[in-house]
Amino acid sequence: MNAVTNFENLVVGFDVPALPGMDEADIQTPALVLDLDALERNIKKMGDYAKAHGMRHRVHGKMHKSVDVAKLQEDLGGAVGVCCQKVSEAEVFVRGGIKDVLVSNQVRDPLKIDRLAQLPKLGSRIIVCVDDLANVADLSAAAQKHGTELETFIEIDCGAGRCGVNSTADVIEIAKAINAADNLKFSGIQAYQGAMQHLDTYEARKEKLDVAIGMVKAAVDGLKAEGIACELVSGGGTGSYYFESNSGVYNELQCGSYAFMDADYGRILDKDGKRIDQGEWENAFFILTSVMSHTKADKAIVDAGLKAQSIDSGLPVVFGRDDVEYIKCSDEHGVVSDPDGALKVNDKLRLVPGHCDPTANVHDWYVGVRNGKVETLWPVSARGKAF
Amino acid sequence: MNAVTNFENLVVGFDVPALPGMDEADIQTPALVLDLDALERNIKKMGDYAKAHGMRHRVHGKMHKSVDVAKLQEDLGGAVGVCCQKVSEAEVFVRGGIKDVLVSNQVRDPLKIDRLAQLPKLGSRIIVCVDDLANVADLSAAAQKHGTELETFIEIDCGAGRCGVNSTADVIEIAKAINAADNLKFSGIQAYQGAMQHLDTYEARKEKLDVAIGMVKAAVDGLKAEGIACELVSGGGTGSYYFESNSGVYNELQCGSYAFMDADYGRILDKDGKRIDQGEWENAFFILTSVMSHTKADKAIVDAGLKAQSIDSGLPVVFGRDDVEYIKCSDEHGVVSDPDGALKVNDKLRLVPGHCDPTANVHDWYVGVRNGKVETLWPVSARGKAF
Repeated sequence: MNAVTNFENLVVGFDVPALPGMDEADIQTPALVLDLDALERNIKKMGDYAKAHGMRHRVHGKMHKSVDVAKLQEDLGGAVGVCCQKVSEAEVFVRGGIKDVLVSNQVRDPLKIDRLAQLPKLGSRIIVCVDDLANVADLSAAAQKHGTELETFIEIDCGAGRCGVNSTADVIEIAKAINAADNLKFSGIQAYQGAMQHLDTYEARKEKLDVAIGMVKAAVDGLKAEGIACELVSGGGTGSYYFESNSGVYNELQCGSYAFMDADYGRILDKDGKRIDQGEWENAFFILTSVMSHTKADKAIVDAGLKAQSIDSGLPVVFGRDDVEYIKCSDEHGVVSDPDGALKVNDKLRLVPGHCDPTANVHDWYVGVRNGKVETLWPVSARGKAF
Repeated sequence: MNAVTNFENLVVGFDVPALPGMDEADIQTPALVLDLDALERNIKKMGDYAKAHGMRHRVHGKMHKSVDVAKLQEDLGGAVGVCCQKVSEAEVFVRGGIKDVLVSNQVRDPLKIDRLAQLPKLGSRIIVCVDDLANVADLSAAAQKHGTELETFIEIDCGAGRCGVNSTADVIEIAKAINAADNLKFSGIQAYQGAMQHLDTYEARKEKLDVAIGMVKAAVDGLKAEGIACELVSGGGTGSYYFESNSGVYNELQCGSYAFMDADYGRILDKDGKRIDQGEWENAFFILTSVMSHTKADKAIVDAGLKAQSIDSGLPVVFGRDDVEYIKCSDEHGVVSDPDGALKVNDKLRLVPGHCDPTANVHDWYVGVRNGKVETLWPVSARGKAF
């Protein structure tokens, strides 16, 4: 583990929001808090599911950006490695000891390609996505320069309308070019249907995934007809992993948010019409916040605003309380309606953020708590690594 | 200056997005770029205005969170010091050498009060806001414990509906308690009308500020009638500073965004109905982003998404171009409509973020550019310091 164990030179407040052994009530807020029991149960549950369905699980490290959480996912959840979105994230995970790292994104900038091509020297398997023939020569040249091998997935746009090729013909053309290029290996297909993950109903999500699976199957069949081996077919998120697992086409999952949960994901419904945060997954990820002003009888002001979270997917939800509601967010403040005057200055609330990924990216530390005590501090290892 | 000058142990990409001397075109994106010429002109202009109007200018450090920018504001703009919103930010500015620091916010947590009360030992004047009588005894006890003096502003809620007292009677009651408490000093009034700063028209903003100025004048007159000295009356932002400067009541400004500008502030109109980013202030603050996929003829995918900015106040605007538009933002990607197919992979765009404060807070570095070359790197010194 990379968890910080030597705190001699750290000062609570200035450097870190807490120290191990502290009561949860003494954490300096706003801070990211992980409920370690809930986190471990989520990780084990998804790991058991993947194992039972014969799927590799390459956990999405872009969600938590933490080497410590990734290693917990390997240890408790049988994860085979991570995916991430940026070369700078891959650099952090490789240096942290993750041995199988996929950049599930295109890398086109010459200096970034050069950085990526050096990573296999550190002993990890490195895979990168390609959606354009012009990229193949650049990746090959950099891998040759550094005497390394880069593996590649061809990304199919299976509904997100963003990156990725649009046809089986494109897949075959690029796969042939990769196999013909020095120091590159064609290792599989990237097909993540991101646009559907947050659709409310199971049926609406299934409809989108059926289309995606059809596209991926056509590409895999097309490659086979050309005699091109396709080792891995990778994709699947917290709102879809059961579709990919039962597709007969995919053999690798890429789930991220299941481990932490957030308010936006929590609202989607499972097969039985039940919210996924009410049984399928537990909320393990919170912003701990404190009341810091209460000069209006029916409004408490808390210390977690836009600098402590991203509100792109909605405002945070106060966990475990229905008497108060987070109703407004400004740079450093949140306004919490408190119609009964239930809150006092210095009261603490656990907020479930609207969107876990960009919220984690604002903080330097995860404070791991169990039974009301701070057990560990984990750095958000790849925080800010967007380049 | 705190700018990093020894780069021996830094690696472009892994640690920093650029190095001095690089061409702007080689910066690893997404990265925050400061146009140093524009920044210096904005800083000098506001400094000249404050001087001409006999106002102190306590620049808002919560916006940029940078010791280097604050010192430039002192050097070029005659700033008297900074304000900031959190004890952790104050710790960074004091350690960075800023000698007059106001926490323009309430501090209520016992450990935070203890941290704050230690800061005067480092040689800076420390002021904190109070809006509740119960806070006075806690601040006094901590200052006595550490043998320091804490100065205080009483915050008036002059329209934001958030923190701050609601009446002149409350101001007088708390001021008396402060002056009666050991190791505390009553130094003035905090009255920042935040809710009006982004109203479109000059007239709409003036209407709100007239109310605020009336409340503040009543409080100042009330204190005078009680024989209580009030050294400073502090407030004013980029959308209102001319009202406070001409009020005859305020003597200290707290402007922040004028130095950088952003898309949301830029849209408000000056007295002549002209956008404030078309003459009053220049855009000096950009997210540099690169095209990293272009598999659809009319859409370019760029590498700046939610992990490179906050979209709470709207999407970023592509600077200097009207042929392309940033239309969608996900975690690591932006979708740019490109109807004419004008963009190629690796083309770079300067984005003007919707909201400068929470966007700066996501990044570790400012890359200062002049004439197409990287001139300096400044750390976002208080990044993530929200506690």
